[in-house]
Amino acid sequence: MLPFSLKEYKKRLDQTKKSMQEKGIEVLIVTNPSNMNYLSGFNCWSFYVDQMLVVMVDEDQPIWIGRQMDANAAKATTWLYHENIIPYPEDYVQSKTKHPSEFAAQILTQIGQSNRSIGIEMNSYFFSIKSYECLKRNLPNATFSDASLLVNYVRIIKSDQEIEYMKKAAKIVEIGMQTAVNSIQEGVRECDAVGDIYRDLVRGTDDFGGDYPAIVPMLPSGRNTSTPHITWTDRKYTNNQMVIIEIAGCHQRYHAPLARTVSLGMPSEEALDVSKVVVEGLNAALDVVKPGVTCEEIEFAWSKIISQHGLVKESRVGYSVGLSYPPDWGEHTASIRKGDLTVLEPNMTFHLIPGLWFEDYGIEISETFRVTETGCEVLTNFPRELIIKDDTISTLII
Amino acid sequence: MLPFSLKEYKKRLDQTKKSMQEKGIEVLIVTNPSNMNYLSGFNCWSFYVDQMLVVMVDEDQPIWIGRQMDANAAKATTWLYHENIIPYPEDYVQSKTKHPSEFAAQILTQIGQSNRSIGIEMNSYFFSIKSYECLKRNLPNATFSDASLLVNYVRIIKSDQEIEYMKKAAKIVEIGMQTAVNSIQEGVRECDAVGDIYRDLVRGTDDFGGDYPAIVPMLPSGRNTSTPHITWTDRKYTNNQMVIIEIAGCHQRYHAPLARTVSLGMPSEEALDVSKVVVEGLNAALDVVKPGVTCEEIEFAWSKIISQHGLVKESRVGYSVGLSYPPDWGEHTASIRKGDLTVLEPNMTFHLIPGLWFEDYGIEISETFRVTETGCEVLTNFPRELIIKDDTISTLII
Repeated sequence: MLPFSLKEYKKRLDQTKKSMQEKGIEVLIVTNPSNMNYLSGFNCWSFYVDQMLVVMVDEDQPIWIGRQMDANAAKATTWLYHENIIPYPEDYVQSKTKHPSEFAAQILTQIGQSNRSIGIEMNSYFFSIKSYECLKRNLPNATFSDASLLVNYVRIIKSDQEIEYMKKAAKIVEIGMQTAVNSIQEGVRECDAVGDIYRDLVRGTDDFGGDYPAIVPMLPSGRNTSTPHITWTDRKYTNNQMVIIEIAGCHQRYHAPLARTVSLGMPSEEALDVSKVVVEGLNAALDVVKPGVTCEEIEFAWSKIISQHGLVKESRVGYSVGLSYPPDWGEHTASIRKGDLTVLEPNMTFHLIPGLWFEDYGIEISETFRVTETGCEVLTNFPRELIIKDDTISTLII
Repeated sequence: MLPFSLKEYKKRLDQTKKSMQEKGIEVLIVTNPSNMNYLSGFNCWSFYVDQMLVVMVDEDQPIWIGRQMDANAAKATTWLYHENIIPYPEDYVQSKTKHPSEFAAQILTQIGQSNRSIGIEMNSYFFSIKSYECLKRNLPNATFSDASLLVNYVRIIKSDQEIEYMKKAAKIVEIGMQTAVNSIQEGVRECDAVGDIYRDLVRGTDDFGGDYPAIVPMLPSGRNTSTPHITWTDRKYTNNQMVIIEIAGCHQRYHAPLARTVSLGMPSEEALDVSKVVVEGLNAALDVVKPGVTCEEIEFAWSKIISQHGLVKESRVGYSVGLSYPPDWGEHTASIRKGDLTVLEPNMTFHLIPGLWFEDYGIEISETFRVTETGCEVLTNFPRELIIKDDTISTLII
């Protein structure tokens, strides 16, 4: 029941080994759960304990090292031979006297890898300083180097099957966004609206289910639109508020994020004007997307429009997106911002999320897109505008 | 709108400083989001980028260093003076040329902390090897030591207000568990059942809302009960399956986890017997809880019962629980297992989760409890038994 063909996994592994060779890395220790999944299929909420995939440049298969309790999950979800799944005993878990890296070092020694050039994902959330120090102590003859983002960069161009999953995720986020628009209204608690959204993101469609997005729904409202990563409360929505909704559909761990802004009650003329500038800038940015263009050129197209209106945005306006686990659905490779010279290629995928924030409100309108052979395909399909819910006019129901 | 009194935050900070002094640490860099929240109130889904709370042993207030975009959230959610909230510019985020640790080192230097004894949470998910190496490089005159779990151990005894939030979380998980029992049935997709559960965990009660639990609902069914951390699919439940449900209610980031097992159709006599052993063992374990008892003594009480029935469980049967962020609701301090000599004190809180797994099914039944002055208070209130849903008898509706 693998989500991809064995051929696709082998291709990913070959590309990873090629990159390892270019960097002089003989053994790569993969601890980013997205990268573990990408190379092996491993899919399990077990990343809060030490686990790793060991890719050796001259071996056909990686080995999985993880907790005893999760070994069956590795057998069930990966394409690895069962003898390549090597669990450490349960008493290593959060122990004061033993560390899983001691176990990993023993295994690496037993299989003749203890004196090699070892690459470590030094920016991984799930391989701690302590784990690294312990591994180094127990492998004194190995040399270590930083292999941060090595596999992430292999992931940057998607296969057709990956795009297929992202399109399913896009269908799911469209449902979730419609639920958000329907649920958010005066007198409704934020937690009740998010409850509805979560239900629908997880249910998915009748044809395929939803998976957990790597980030919880973000719905800053009113003045809180200037604090974009604060999560919901049990306060009630009031009229004459702006609510930004940033959510993602997820299928087979592939994400399609989408942001929209809802105005409860008629917005001010200024806010309406700003929303039109955001849409104009978003459209201008999407218009320049095609193979050969750089990431910063997309940002320039956006900046040019907003600067014509006397506006500035400092933060990046997008990032590469796809396979992910909490706490972030971004891939941490290319960003759509000044100075990022990543050249677009077909089947790169991005979340383009321009926004503008002011003293007491903000407007965000985003899309997830794919670079095609000749231009840009927007995966998410939802009216690209400020959504106005006002009792005095008929509420927008799509 | 702080969830705790200023007095409580100051007390936590004082206890932290006391522990720092005992360990010879002058400056503590706190990057575990639960610990940042505990000391300052900071509550934001921003832990996927570098951020820290700097506690200086001789300063009244910590300083917050984080991303520009999240500085308003720090102002909105913490008790810190605004001048102690120091953001780094947006172009440090996931940059190839700049690192937030360079910025942090500059600040530490400017405020005279560059030649001190600095404690680092070396097992934090959210302070990477790369962040640490960069900080060390930029603070060559500082000495560094491991301060893993320093604040976690301050957190191990809860205040009355913390217990109050855990009781609210317990009310929420009871609702979520009832929804799970109602939704899980033959022909229903796993994702639809989880959608319902998520909605109700987030909605909470009419009086107070739910927050996002640090772990997604876990609902292994059938043979998958031997792979406890695999998440849901869009497969349909079939009759004659066991489904384990492990979820938590969350309020103000405080958790009350709860596990139950549902049998779809009449269970085998063996499974019914095993469920009775699990309940007997759970009760025996709860019976020994009181101040002065050690964690391993709780485990012994459980083991004694199951060994009388010829059964063995290798992994720990519980852990300290409370305030948390993804990816884990455990506090990583005390575990209920052989060898853990932590002595129970009033207002320690644990998730006691014994379970037994066999070839093709497993039984888990858990409770969240608090140590009282004289014994044990179970916070979660749900029938402590195997829940049987069978069309031929009347379905259990509580």
